[in-house]
Amino acid sequence: MRAVILFGHGSRDASWRQPMDAVAALIRARAPEVPVRCAFLDLEPPDLATAAADLIGAGATRISIVPMFLGAGRHMREDLPRLVESLRQAHRSLELQVHAPVGENPRVLDLLASIALE
Amino acid sequence: MRAVILFGHGSRDASWRQPMDAVAALIRARAPEVPVRCAFLDLEPPDLATAAADLIGAGATRISIVPMFLGAGRHMREDLPRLVESLRQAHRSLELQVHAPVGENPRVLDLLASIALE
Repeated sequence: MRAVILFGHGSRDASWRQPMDAVAALIRARAPEVPVRCAFLDLEPPDLATAAADLIGAGATRISIVPMFLGAGRHMREDLPRLVESLRQAHRSLELQVHAPVGENPRVLDLLASIALE
Repeated sequence: MRAVILFGHGSRDASWRQPMDAVAALIRARAPEVPVRCAFLDLEPPDLATAAADLIGAGATRISIVPMFLGAGRHMREDLPRLVESLRQAHRSLELQVHAPVGENPRVLDLLASIALE
């Protein structure tokens, strides 16, 4: 069974995650058969390992991790690969697909340019 | 003359701003008559006031500020309104249009959900 984790930075501010929750709700509406969780690098739970364990417990055998980061910094180059590697070590039969951060997706960049010119 | 400021968080990591620079390059390619600058809340120059003064010096009379934030936290609710207000005070004849943060744009959320399901 396939599942999705939306992986964001996290914040002490409770409203910060609203856009991520909105994307998760859209995914649930479009593909109710695909369980989806939000997970955070820092400052709020759950972390990536906890969200993955939750999905595996619910029967997930393939997890797509979607980094909800617009910036392309150290969190993407260092922190995420480290977390993904420990996930692979902990769940050796799990299929893990790690997307490029959304800020590197050409369709996202294109849409942001269109919005800026409106 | 109309101009655009892409307003992001900023980072100590030099590669972090690459997606913002990529969006700025797309805007320049599509609308070469619209000057565009990146500006940052913290950690790297220029700040919003400096980018705006630069554009006004180049002849801008209308500036659209596009917050390149996926999260909807304190930076959007408190920091940006404060910076925009001092910009209005400093340049009373300037027309300022402040977009919703990109993380609250329904088309962005929709695209992120599509990407997550690919």
